[in-house]
Amino acid sequence: MDNFDNINLEELDFVDMDLEEIQELAEGMLSQRKYSMLRQMLGNLNAADIALLFDEIDKKEIPLLYRLLPKEEAAETFTYMSRDMQETLINALTDRELRAVMDDIFLDDTVDIIEEMPANVVARILRNTDEETRKMINQVLHYPKDSAGSLMTIEYVNIKKDMTVGEAISRIRQTAVDKETIYTCYVTEHRKLIGMVSVKDLLMAEDSMQIEDIMETNVIYTDTHEDKEEVVKIFNKYDFLAIPVVDQEERLVGIVTFDDAMDVMQEENTEDITKMAAMTPTEDSYFNTSVFSHARSRIGWLMVLMLSATVSGSIINHYQESFKLYPLLVSFIPMLTGTGGNCGSQSSTLMIRGLSLDEIKFKDIFRVIFKEFRIAIIVSIVLAIVNGIRIFIQYGDIQMSVIISLSLVAVVVISKFIGCTLPLIAEHIHLDPALMAAPLISTIVDICSTLLYFKIATIVLHISV
Amino acid sequence: MDNFDNINLEELDFVDMDLEEIQELAEGMLSQRKYSMLRQMLGNLNAADIALLFDEIDKKEIPLLYRLLPKEEAAETFTYMSRDMQETLINALTDRELRAVMDDIFLDDTVDIIEEMPANVVARILRNTDEETRKMINQVLHYPKDSAGSLMTIEYVNIKKDMTVGEAISRIRQTAVDKETIYTCYVTEHRKLIGMVSVKDLLMAEDSMQIEDIMETNVIYTDTHEDKEEVVKIFNKYDFLAIPVVDQEERLVGIVTFDDAMDVMQEENTEDITKMAAMTPTEDSYFNTSVFSHARSRIGWLMVLMLSATVSGSIINHYQESFKLYPLLVSFIPMLTGTGGNCGSQSSTLMIRGLSLDEIKFKDIFRVIFKEFRIAIIVSIVLAIVNGIRIFIQYGDIQMSVIISLSLVAVVVISKFIGCTLPLIAEHIHLDPALMAAPLISTIVDICSTLLYFKIATIVLHISV
Repeated sequence: MDNFDNINLEELDFVDMDLEEIQELAEGMLSQRKYSMLRQMLGNLNAADIALLFDEIDKKEIPLLYRLLPKEEAAETFTYMSRDMQETLINALTDRELRAVMDDIFLDDTVDIIEEMPANVVARILRNTDEETRKMINQVLHYPKDSAGSLMTIEYVNIKKDMTVGEAISRIRQTAVDKETIYTCYVTEHRKLIGMVSVKDLLMAEDSMQIEDIMETNVIYTDTHEDKEEVVKIFNKYDFLAIPVVDQEERLVGIVTFDDAMDVMQEENTEDITKMAAMTPTEDSYFNTSVFSHARSRIGWLMVLMLSATVSGSIINHYQESFKLYPLLVSFIPMLTGTGGNCGSQSSTLMIRGLSLDEIKFKDIFRVIFKEFRIAIIVSIVLAIVNGIRIFIQYGDIQMSVIISLSLVAVVVISKFIGCTLPLIAEHIHLDPALMAAPLISTIVDICSTLLYFKIATIVLHISV
Repeated sequence: MDNFDNINLEELDFVDMDLEEIQELAEGMLSQRKYSMLRQMLGNLNAADIALLFDEIDKKEIPLLYRLLPKEEAAETFTYMSRDMQETLINALTDRELRAVMDDIFLDDTVDIIEEMPANVVARILRNTDEETRKMINQVLHYPKDSAGSLMTIEYVNIKKDMTVGEAISRIRQTAVDKETIYTCYVTEHRKLIGMVSVKDLLMAEDSMQIEDIMETNVIYTDTHEDKEEVVKIFNKYDFLAIPVVDQEERLVGIVTFDDAMDVMQEENTEDITKMAAMTPTEDSYFNTSVFSHARSRIGWLMVLMLSATVSGSIINHYQESFKLYPLLVSFIPMLTGTGGNCGSQSSTLMIRGLSLDEIKFKDIFRVIFKEFRIAIIVSIVLAIVNGIRIFIQYGDIQMSVIISLSLVAVVVISKFIGCTLPLIAEHIHLDPALMAAPLISTIVDICSTLLYFKIATIVLHISV
């Protein structure tokens, strides 16, 4: 696009344009110095989309583009940016500009930024926030990482039980601008949480009614030291917009809002999935993690599992004589260990997911074992029949057919048993059940499978080892 | 607990009690016919918790307990119940009671219930809803399963651009009771969506201002036929309370609220995790799925993978002569295939997750391959050195050390390559990338690993096959 003089921005439908088209427009406008047109376009975009645009444009244009943002969009866009981009920008902004950003963003976002920036950047941020905010930041930073305290915002609406509905509404109208959410208002007395009222309830009530008479007193809350995973479970169970957070003295100190809970939910899911594939979770996205960090996060478990696999190696070694006599025996090892590993990881995956969604608990262990046993019987008999017939047709060897079929049944039953019990036991002894996923289960199942297989083979073939 | 006469319910802190204590109290009150006390206790509990209580108590007490619920809690509790419990209750309620429930619950919940109930129950539900609701139900049922249309609710607040803020607020106050969320109001003209205003914006504006002047015109929306996974991505990207849904003619027909999006998010994650463990996802929770359904959802992939594993079997068979000469070769097979499988599934897991979070796209394939290649080199060299030394110490066999070390490097590099490319290719040809997870990758990697291993071994050991 070479000429912008004939473009009418009003006619462009930004919602339907994809990022690349917008990027192209923005770059064209930058190079032709059509700044007022660019400012107008940015005003039509959503903060989350503008943040994506920053990732795509030329690095040296970043401060200029940021200065073109309408003031009310600038701070919000900043919170949606990647950590790298935020750092670049903080370094490029003047103190006055930085102060304007810090004034406009919510405290929980400031804390998130501070937690991940290098010390010199943090020092600059703190120099550019006012005394009171600095005190609050320090307070929130003080809570353990991954706790409700570190996740919460302290900007909520606080009302008193002896207010009228009308008074409460005008309080909201006066203070709304600084609050992350106004839709749930918390009623406190001597700083203790005694009730809550939603804006919907307020709007549906008469102006003259007392808050005390319409407030919900049975409030579900969490405390500052609660693990954020537990906070997410509360959001999953109840459809709340926000959950109040109290300190050890039961005083209301903040709220966690649904959008932060949603982010945690996705992070926790990613963490579980990463652990289930034998990796240490990294903080950042795939491309933002260096090759070296990727290697480090993967090598630990690979090493452990590689060395554990020598156990099945030794078992095979022990049965050398049998496969010297029947070399065909060796060729079924991958099929048996593979099937065992898959069966085991099917069971363990269902356990890990069930535990994390609170659908399965340790006390269900015997119910689970019995259920998995019946499933294993059905599955293994079907697999054994199909494979038995295939082997008989392919090799015409009925003994081999019987060995493989019997081994399959034994392997499936034992691997389902291991797959369903280990995650439950891990949870019970306060280990992360996600570690008991496919890779570890496969290694353990490999050992059991080879042992069972050669035992069955030597018995059927009358080989003495 | 045998006597309730001395209990003061006011003193009990239900928030801190666990389900079992509440269940015990409820059962005691039921058996001693302390119905008014029980009703009072239920009034103090949250609907989601009451629903859990229903799962625990004696089946024949269910209708009685339900009739004791305060009217305003009854319908909400119903929406939190499991499908089985809902069916039991619908069959137990009189027509009049059923009508009361159906009047009180939101349309999207009614549709959810109807979609999962047997035909005779559906007929009873439809008989007990009014003409207009029935029409709306049919309309929503008409959208494809898993579409935004089937997920949305049609109970939203609708305002006009020429209203004043004061008029809009009084419209909300009048109609709030029937709306699922009032916090985002949509502005329509000739049924087309032209803008939106949040209740926060309304409260912060002057009563005399025009909606047209304060509304946000750049509205992010979705359409009725959009996949619900895409709708969740919008919620992940922007922190919205609700997203408007338009039909093919761009008319506003409903909204999807954040709580339903959160549920979908968890369901999608469960579905991905289940598929990644070579299972067909089931609709229900672990315990609510029968043994037979579990077996059926697992056996398909097991069968495919079991039969594919015969390929690595044939490769091994082909190299019979080499392991007749060097039986030790066999004992390293599980370690090599295991390490290959784990490396491959590490890469494929990161790809599957990155794709589902939109962090990785098909066009990144060469960047990904190059990154995974460098990671593979670091990882494999460390593993090869450790294992080479171990083997040399254990067996004093330098040739075997070299074979295993070289094979490890080859296996790690090839399995990272397979693990990172297959999910991206699957996405590109519109297959579900989650199917390219550990089980399938392991089977393919097994074949490559055994082939590479025996090739390297026969070259180093100068064996001709």
